[in-house]
Amino acid sequence: MSGKEKSTESIPKVPSHINRKLATSFQKSRLSPDIVPFLFEEIRKGSIVALSQGITLVESKKEQDNILAQELIQKCLPYSGNSVRIGITGVPGVGKSTFIETLGTYWMTQHKKLAVLAVDPSSSMTKGSIMGDKTRMEKLAASDQVFIRPSAAGTSLGGVTQMTRETIILCEAAGYERIIVETVGVGQSETAVYHMTDIFLLLKLAGAGDELQGIKRGIIELADAILINKDDGDNQLATKKAKNHFSKALHLLSVKENDWQPKVLSCSALHNKGIAEANLMIAQYVQFTKQNKSFDRRRKQQDINWLHKTIENRLLSQFYQNKQLQSEIASLEKLVVNKKLSPFQAAETLLKKFT
Amino acid sequence: MSGKEKSTESIPKVPSHINRKLATSFQKSRLSPDIVPFLFEEIRKGSIVALSQGITLVESKKEQDNILAQELIQKCLPYSGNSVRIGITGVPGVGKSTFIETLGTYWMTQHKKLAVLAVDPSSSMTKGSIMGDKTRMEKLAASDQVFIRPSAAGTSLGGVTQMTRETIILCEAAGYERIIVETVGVGQSETAVYHMTDIFLLLKLAGAGDELQGIKRGIIELADAILINKDDGDNQLATKKAKNHFSKALHLLSVKENDWQPKVLSCSALHNKGIAEANLMIAQYVQFTKQNKSFDRRRKQQDINWLHKTIENRLLSQFYQNKQLQSEIASLEKLVVNKKLSPFQAAETLLKKFT
Repeated sequence: MSGKEKSTESIPKVPSHINRKLATSFQKSRLSPDIVPFLFEEIRKGSIVALSQGITLVESKKEQDNILAQELIQKCLPYSGNSVRIGITGVPGVGKSTFIETLGTYWMTQHKKLAVLAVDPSSSMTKGSIMGDKTRMEKLAASDQVFIRPSAAGTSLGGVTQMTRETIILCEAAGYERIIVETVGVGQSETAVYHMTDIFLLLKLAGAGDELQGIKRGIIELADAILINKDDGDNQLATKKAKNHFSKALHLLSVKENDWQPKVLSCSALHNKGIAEANLMIAQYVQFTKQNKSFDRRRKQQDINWLHKTIENRLLSQFYQNKQLQSEIASLEKLVVNKKLSPFQAAETLLKKFT
Repeated sequence: MSGKEKSTESIPKVPSHINRKLATSFQKSRLSPDIVPFLFEEIRKGSIVALSQGITLVESKKEQDNILAQELIQKCLPYSGNSVRIGITGVPGVGKSTFIETLGTYWMTQHKKLAVLAVDPSSSMTKGSIMGDKTRMEKLAASDQVFIRPSAAGTSLGGVTQMTRETIILCEAAGYERIIVETVGVGQSETAVYHMTDIFLLLKLAGAGDELQGIKRGIIELADAILINKDDGDNQLATKKAKNHFSKALHLLSVKENDWQPKVLSCSALHNKGIAEANLMIAQYVQFTKQNKSFDRRRKQQDINWLHKTIENRLLSQFYQNKQLQSEIASLEKLVVNKKLSPFQAAETLLKKFT
C-alpha cells in the first residue's frame, strides 16, 4: 500500500569484465543525441551491454532518457517481431525459475538465443523472491546466448507493462528468438503478460489444493497450456490425477478464439523430465497458430492495445504535469473531501480548463 | 476475453407489488429534469423504489441518464457518510452469501438498516453465482430494512467501481447505516473494494490449502480481519489450526497505518456461530479507528482517490468521443500494426491534436 518509489534510479554501472570500451563510450555520450544511432547499431550487432543500456533508458524515470528510449525503439521496430514470446505464470513456489532454467538450457543445445524478462509490479514492496533473479538460473546466467533482466522496481503494473513491451522490441532487434516473460499473480499482471505474448503457460502443482479453489478466475481461460510441475517422487500419482482433472476442466471451456485446444502436460523441471515435450508443444502451438493466421492476428491486436495503453498513460501524464492545474487540483480535492462538490463535478471543472 | 457488453440496458420495470404510484410517476417523468429533486426527496424519505431508480440512472449507459445521476449524487452528498462501509471478500464457495445473511439478520434484530452491494466485474462473463443474489439471502431479501443490489453486468472493473461508490452515496442518503460491499477475487476487485470501505474482511476456509499458497499476494495485507468460516462439524480442528496459523502470520506483518492489529476470528455462518463476535469486532474496529481519527483520514483519502479515478475516466472518455480524432486513430493504428510508427509516437501525434 505504501506507493513509495525509489527516487534515485540512475544508469547502473556496467560490469567491468565485459566490453569496457563500449561501456566507457556509452557513459560519455549518454546525454548526446548520438547515443541513439550508436546504441542501435550495437544492439543490432548483438551487444548485451548496449541492450542493457537501452533498457535502462526505457526504465529511466527521467523525461530526457525516455525521449532517447523512444527514438531507439522507433529505430528497432522494423527489426522486431522475429521471436516467439512466451508468457509464464504460476504462484510462488511452483518452480518457475527452475522450469525456465531447464527449458532454456534445452534451447541452448538448439542454439536459440533466449531473453528472460519479468513483470512483477510488487518486487519493490514485498520480500518475495525477485523474479528474473539470475542466481536462480545459474546455467542461463552463465551463457552468452541468454539475456536475463529482472523486473524494474518501484513502478506500477501499468509502468512495468509498458517497459516490458518496449524491452521485447529491443531484445528482438538484438536477435533474441525466444522471449520468456514471467510473472506471479499480482493484481492483473497475468492479464498484462497474456496481452504481450504469443503463448501463455500456467505452471501448477498437483495436490496443492488450488485445483479445488483459489485459482484466480479467468487465468485458466487465458492459458494455452497448463504444465503441472514437480512430477517426481511421491508426487507422481497426484500429478496424474491433477492432469486428468485439468484436461477435463479445459474441455468444458469453450474453444479459444484461435481454435487451439489448450494442452495439459506434466513435467519435473528439477529432474529434466517432460521438458522436451513442453518444447514440442510450444513448437506445435506456434505452427498451428501461424498456419491459421491467428498468431499474426493476436500480435496485431496486441499492438493496437499497446497504442491505446500508451495514449492513456500519456494523456494522464500530460494532465498531471500541467502546472496551471496543480493548484486547482489541490483546492478541488478539499471541496470534494468536505462534500461540497462531487468528484464528478470537480473532474468536469478540471477537464474544462485542460482542454 | 470477449469484451462483449449488453447493449440494451434499459430502466428495469418496477416490481408491481411496491409503490405502484411512485413507479408510474417515475416512468412518466423520467426524462424531465424534475426527476432529480423528486427522486432526491423520495430517497431521503427512504423509498426503496426511488433508490433503485437512482442507482439505475447511475448504472445507465446513456449520457443523459448519467447527467441526471450526477445531479442526484451532488444533492445526496451532504447527507452521505453516516454509515459503516464493510468490504467482504473470499473465493467462491467460502460462504459469503450465508455470512452476509446471518450477520445481516443479526443487525435486523438491532434495527440497523443494511444495504448489500456487489463489485463483480466478471458477472457478465462467467457462469459463476451472481453476487448479491437475493435468492441466496432469503431472510434479508424479505426484510424492508434491507436493500440488496447485485452487481451491474457487462462493465469493466473501473466502471463497476465508479458505480458502486456512487451507489454508496445514494444508500447513505436513504438512511442505510451498514453498507456491505462484497466481491470475489477477480483482477483487482479486492483492492477496489478496500478503497471504498471502512473495514475490509477476508473470509477463508480451513484446510482448503490456500493458507499454504495460492493466496493472492497483498490481500492478507489489506484485511482488517480474517474470518474462518464453516467452523462446524469435522472442520473444527482444522479451523482452530488455521486460526492459529493466520494469527501468527498477521503478527509478522508490519502494523497497519491505522494502528489496528488485524484480528482472526472463526465462525459458522450456517449455524449462526461466531456472528455476535464478528459484529463486536466490527464495532470495536469502528470505535478504535474513530478514536484515533484514522476512520476519517481513510475516508478523506478515498474521496481524493475517487476524484482522481473520475478524472482518469472522464479524460479518456473525452478523448475517445472526439469525432475529429476517430479517423486519425484508425489510420495510426494501421501504421503501428505495420511497424512504421511506434505506439509512443502515434500517441504523441494524437495527443497534440487533442490538446
